[in-house]
Amino acid sequence: MIKTDTTSKSAVVLLSGGLDSMVSAALAQEQGYSVNALTIDYNQRHRRELDAARDVAHMLGVARHVILPLDLSLFGGSALTDRAIDVPKGEPGTAIPVTYVPARNLVFLSLTLAWAETLDAHDIFIGVNSLDYSGYPDCRPEFIASFTETARLATKAGAEGSPFAIHTPLQYLGKAEIAQEAARLGLDPGRSWSCYDPQPDGRACGVCDSCRLRRDGFAQAGLEDPTPYAA
Amino acid sequence: MIKTDTTSKSAVVLLSGGLDSMVSAALAQEQGYSVNALTIDYNQRHRRELDAARDVAHMLGVARHVILPLDLSLFGGSALTDRAIDVPKGEPGTAIPVTYVPARNLVFLSLTLAWAETLDAHDIFIGVNSLDYSGYPDCRPEFIASFTETARLATKAGAEGSPFAIHTPLQYLGKAEIAQEAARLGLDPGRSWSCYDPQPDGRACGVCDSCRLRRDGFAQAGLEDPTPYAA
Repeated sequence: MIKTDTTSKSAVVLLSGGLDSMVSAALAQEQGYSVNALTIDYNQRHRRELDAARDVAHMLGVARHVILPLDLSLFGGSALTDRAIDVPKGEPGTAIPVTYVPARNLVFLSLTLAWAETLDAHDIFIGVNSLDYSGYPDCRPEFIASFTETARLATKAGAEGSPFAIHTPLQYLGKAEIAQEAARLGLDPGRSWSCYDPQPDGRACGVCDSCRLRRDGFAQAGLEDPTPYAA
Repeated sequence: MIKTDTTSKSAVVLLSGGLDSMVSAALAQEQGYSVNALTIDYNQRHRRELDAARDVAHMLGVARHVILPLDLSLFGGSALTDRAIDVPKGEPGTAIPVTYVPARNLVFLSLTLAWAETLDAHDIFIGVNSLDYSGYPDCRPEFIASFTETARLATKAGAEGSPFAIHTPLQYLGKAEIAQEAARLGLDPGRSWSCYDPQPDGRACGVCDSCRLRRDGFAQAGLEDPTPYAA
């Protein structure tokens, strides 16, 4: 459904399996990039997300898909990797939530950069958005700008005058607009997975921060979300 | 042999198993830090280095030692991870060598940062030196300075006003001076491992860039290197 120009430039796209990264990858293809999708298996408790990443990569027909194991649970400290910390189920607050994974986007972007330099690709896409995730410092535009400069200094390609561009096509979109983009691009949102705490019966919990953001977004956009919710 | 103050602040130290990181970790202890050592098993061909990291961590009596598997050979592109590329054995040149691993120090520092934030440690040590490794862009002080700013922006701790310091105690030392530091600190240099291409009989090749730098350094310092060399 997405047309890919076979003579196109290559990009590396972080593909978590969530709605945002699915739309980000499809936007990269729409812009003419051949997509190399990188999914990090960081031993997240919502491992259902990895199945979604495989499914989305297949649906989009990406050039390559690497699922890289990186066991961040060895470090602990986040509800997403440490099974001793509960995923919060109340109303989202304004503080940085316990689902924050220390330095996650910096670690993940650094890995996309390593692969991009190997592929001689100079474009990286990440589906961060600073409206929905105002609590996560590593979704802010000032972080992305600083990473871009560090990436230039960190690499052989950068040192030789070929720096990397970090594309954040969802930076200023809210979840409703991202759901609308998915619809415009003809993507089935049911292929993506957002819930931090999948239930034993395979349904999304419906009440974690990520479920709430997703459900509110689809509701605001007047679009149907095929995700099965337990509550 | 290294005195550790039990009331000291914690630091995370990148410990590859080479001479530089061994000295860097010991200097952190000398400065009063309790050392949490992080070794990345990036599927490097010189896996002997990982044994050295374990041995050095034990010798120094570090507080914690994590060996994190991260299979960078999935990306390829370096003689250190791609067995299809030979480790060069000639005189070191001035260009960036094929033993360069794309964005390695950025990936590794990002991982130290993730662990440091989890431990509420705000000091990170890395044994880069810009004299010996002038060919590696990610050993330069401008890279370290840029990473420091990106780390501040990437993290909850940084956003809340508690940034991270990246210590590079070997930044302006050559290999001879590092060998002298090892001697001053009472460290057995034979515990560390530098060779990129260990021989089947367990000896260091003696002729890769890393062996050459090490041998020249010890020779200049007038110190003995107990490493067994094949050539």
